[in-house]
Amino acid sequence: MGYIKILNLIKVQYLTKETFKNKIKQKTKIKMPVITKTISVETKKDTDLIDITNHVSAVLKSSGLAQGIATVFVPGATGSVSTIEYEPGLLKDIPEALERIAPSGINYEHHKTWGDDNGKSHVRATFLGPGIVVPFINSQLILGTWQQIVFMDFDTKARKRKLIVQVMGE
Amino acid sequence: MGYIKILNLIKVQYLTKETFKNKIKQKTKIKMPVITKTISVETKKDTDLIDITNHVSAVLKSSGLAQGIATVFVPGATGSVSTIEYEPGLLKDIPEALERIAPSGINYEHHKTWGDDNGKSHVRATFLGPGIVVPFINSQLILGTWQQIVFMDFDTKARKRKLIVQVMGE
Amino acid sequence: MGYIKILNLIKVQYLTKETFKNKIKQKTKIKMPVITKTISVETKKDTDLIDITNHVSAVLKSSGLAQGIATVFVPGATGSVSTIEYEPGLLKDIPEALERIAPSGINYEHHKTWGDDNGKSHVRATFLGPGIVVPFINSQLILGTWQQIVFMDFDTKARKRKLIVQVMGE
Repeated sequence: MGYIKILNLIKVQYLTKETFKNKIKQKTKIKMPVITKTISVETKKDTDLIDITNHVSAVLKSSGLAQGIATVFVPGATGSVSTIEYEPGLLKDIPEALERIAPSGINYEHHKTWGDDNGKSHVRATFLGPGIVVPFINSQLILGTWQQIVFMDFDTKARKRKLIVQVMGE
Repeated sequence: MGYIKILNLIKVQYLTKETFKNKIKQKTKIKMPVITKTISVETKKDTDLIDITNHVSAVLKSSGLAQGIATVFVPGATGSVSTIEYEPGLLKDIPEALERIAPSGINYEHHKTWGDDNGKSHVRATFLGPGIVVPFINSQLILGTWQQIVFMDFDTKARKRKLIVQVMGE
Repeated sequence: MGYIKILNLIKVQYLTKETFKNKIKQKTKIKMPVITKTISVETKKDTDLIDITNHVSAVLKSSGLAQGIATVFVPGATGSVSTIEYEPGLLKDIPEALERIAPSGINYEHHKTWGDDNGKSHVRATFLGPGIVVPFINSQLILGTWQQIVFMDFDTKARKRKLIVQVMGE
């Protein structure tokens, strides 16, 4: 018996508080963070389509996350988010097809409630949905070569919109 | 040499088991839990729209989570979830617009398979989709002021539905 | 004073490095992993519907996760993912209803851009959306008894598709 034995016992557990903290930190960095950002877009009236892919990629890049999902969401009832091959032809085809679902120039009950004129905008938004979820891996959104993330503003007047991009993963 | 030196070595690491456990717990509460709940709604036949925002908020509140996503999903093929400005006008406009996609009173091949009469309900549900994902921050769903979460039951008879609300985050 | 007292102090903290590591590991295995897989499907031209429920379930099973979400996504702008009662009648009703939104045999501006003939395919895909999120619990997708996950290929030629299935949870 003597100091030697005691010191031996102590050695196995000899960690400074700093080392102790770092060890725990190191082990727990496998947490899954969530990063929520707002992106701003200005839209023209009557079904304006905006390519927001670069905005979403920028949020993903800033997060430092490698693998997970990006949720893109419009907090408002007259816009939608989807994907599209963003080229001039489809920017005309989409509004034309929307006329078949919720035409302009007909009466909507919604107009009676508030004296609004954007009944068609509301119907289009509910049908196409307020957001999408895009998976990512290797810190890259998994999109096709000819596929962009599009925000569609169906409102009948120009708007300044705040869209939500939330990335979650590891 | 003597007790003093030994006690000094011990001091840096002197933690009771309780403190040790708490320190680890504290560092690891950055985990991301998942909470899955069921909400029950009773619906009328032929495209009934139910505002379920408060149900979803209640699940979020009970979870204690601050930031993440709420997935709202109908386990069934004749209903959909989306968002809407929930007001009496649109509750009439939406069913009318759905008639343009999948009209009542026409023949559906689905009716031949089971002798059912809800072919239109199935088509509407597949088109509008079974669920949505709504991001939240500061323990609040990120929704517009005039935007509610809506469950749409397209079936041709009254139903008791169990909807899934799953929150995930930190 | 003496060895006894010192040993007593040591006892409360006496943990080997191995025990120490295991304790931390045990506490932090509540991490949330993400697993991303690709599934391959071959589709026929002009709105082919493929039941991919078993593919998605297989990815979930291989992940070992109990509770969370499965994101199913098509990296491409002429297909969509939704749910359906997968039976022969609806496989005819869905394409027929899609003709009401984006008919065949009309002119699309998209055709002028590339000399393509699949303008309708693009419109349908943007309207129905590129993916869905399905919650799971007890390692089972939460789907209705008569509800399957369906990939819809709207393109005008046969395709070999890579779809993304990403599960995330605990």
